[in-house]
Amino acid sequence: MRKVKLNVRSNFHIKPEIRILGVDDSALLGKRVKLVGTIFRGGTWLDGVLSSEITRDGKDATKVICRMVKESKHYKQVRVIMLDGVTYGGFNVVDISRLNKATDLPVIVVMRTFPDFKSIKAALRHFKDGAARLRVIKKAGRIEKVSLKERKSPIYIQKAGISLESAIKIVRLSTTRSNIPEPLRVAHMIATGIIFGESRGKA
Amino acid sequence: MRKVKLNVRSNFHIKPEIRILGVDDSALLGKRVKLVGTIFRGGTWLDGVLSSEITRDGKDATKVICRMVKESKHYKQVRVIMLDGVTYGGFNVVDISRLNKATDLPVIVVMRTFPDFKSIKAALRHFKDGAARLRVIKKAGRIEKVSLKERKSPIYIQKAGISLESAIKIVRLSTTRSNIPEPLRVAHMIATGIIFGESRGKA
Repeated sequence: MRKVKLNVRSNFHIKPEIRILGVDDSALLGKRVKLVGTIFRGGTWLDGVLSSEITRDGKDATKVICRMVKESKHYKQVRVIMLDGVTYGGFNVVDISRLNKATDLPVIVVMRTFPDFKSIKAALRHFKDGAARLRVIKKAGRIEKVSLKERKSPIYIQKAGISLESAIKIVRLSTTRSNIPEPLRVAHMIATGIIFGESRGKA
Repeated sequence: MRKVKLNVRSNFHIKPEIRILGVDDSALLGKRVKLVGTIFRGGTWLDGVLSSEITRDGKDATKVICRMVKESKHYKQVRVIMLDGVTYGGFNVVDISRLNKATDLPVIVVMRTFPDFKSIKAALRHFKDGAARLRVIKKAGRIEKVSLKERKSPIYIQKAGISLESAIKIVRLSTTRSNIPEPLRVAHMIATGIIFGESRGKA
């Protein structure tokens, strides 16, 4: 296993075929929610598919994603983890700095829209530990707007263990097909296709 | 719905981004076996993911695949169905000429190796209707060897509702990443990744 580095990588070399692990979740149909991981080479080829399960509104998302990444045969090739927001399976919050440290991989959080903190706070009032969950959400740090080329809508990102400059480079190079990076677009298609019989909506 | 045509399409126009629906099955763990369908543009982009279930060693594969294809929102865009052999979920045999007629789409069967008919016959002796299943397998027609460019191993194909020439063109244009067409390579990764937690083996 690689040694744990706690600092941001300053000389992060980004190849066009950098291996990215994207994670999305399936719909909230029961108490258990499926997570789907895709291993992509940049924004082009799918190299592998992972899956796991978390508890709806539980507290196991960080641990489960960490285990899914580290137990994968692709772990040594993967250079960055990409998440679709920081809440999975309802309000099961991913602590991205903990995920970064435990996997020794940078984490990039991608969002289509700026998160609606008013609604998030209102929803978290129904949780006994809502304040603690909100702290983990806020700990994910500053939300940065990233413009994409051509007529694509901008997206929003957060990051852990990587510079903003490198994170933006990776997001741009992997956003080849739509206005969301391929690892997340495909993870979303798999997660919905497997649960509903046909993929739907947007990551 | 489109009119059913029973004849081979003689003027089958093949664009580089021709929509292909590839179907693979998951491992035999229980009585129900998951089918995964991928909708690809040629050998490049994944446009959608479908899923369904068949019975292990049952007789519903043709009907289930037919329904999965026709009920998809991608049905009107799909130009060809690609199968990984003609037996799914054990010995649940797909009648490719029936699938071709019912969906009005050409069917191409892809195999990595020439099927071992001796073993197939031996296994089918354990089925009361083994002779009937063997007839459906043989009805899939002549098996053709297809060479792929570079140092790739040749593959074997069968077809229904399409000329051999067009089938070979489609197989070649969609085999971009390995020595199996992308729709089948990715369907296999999804089917194994979802069941085992990580994709494995070859389609």
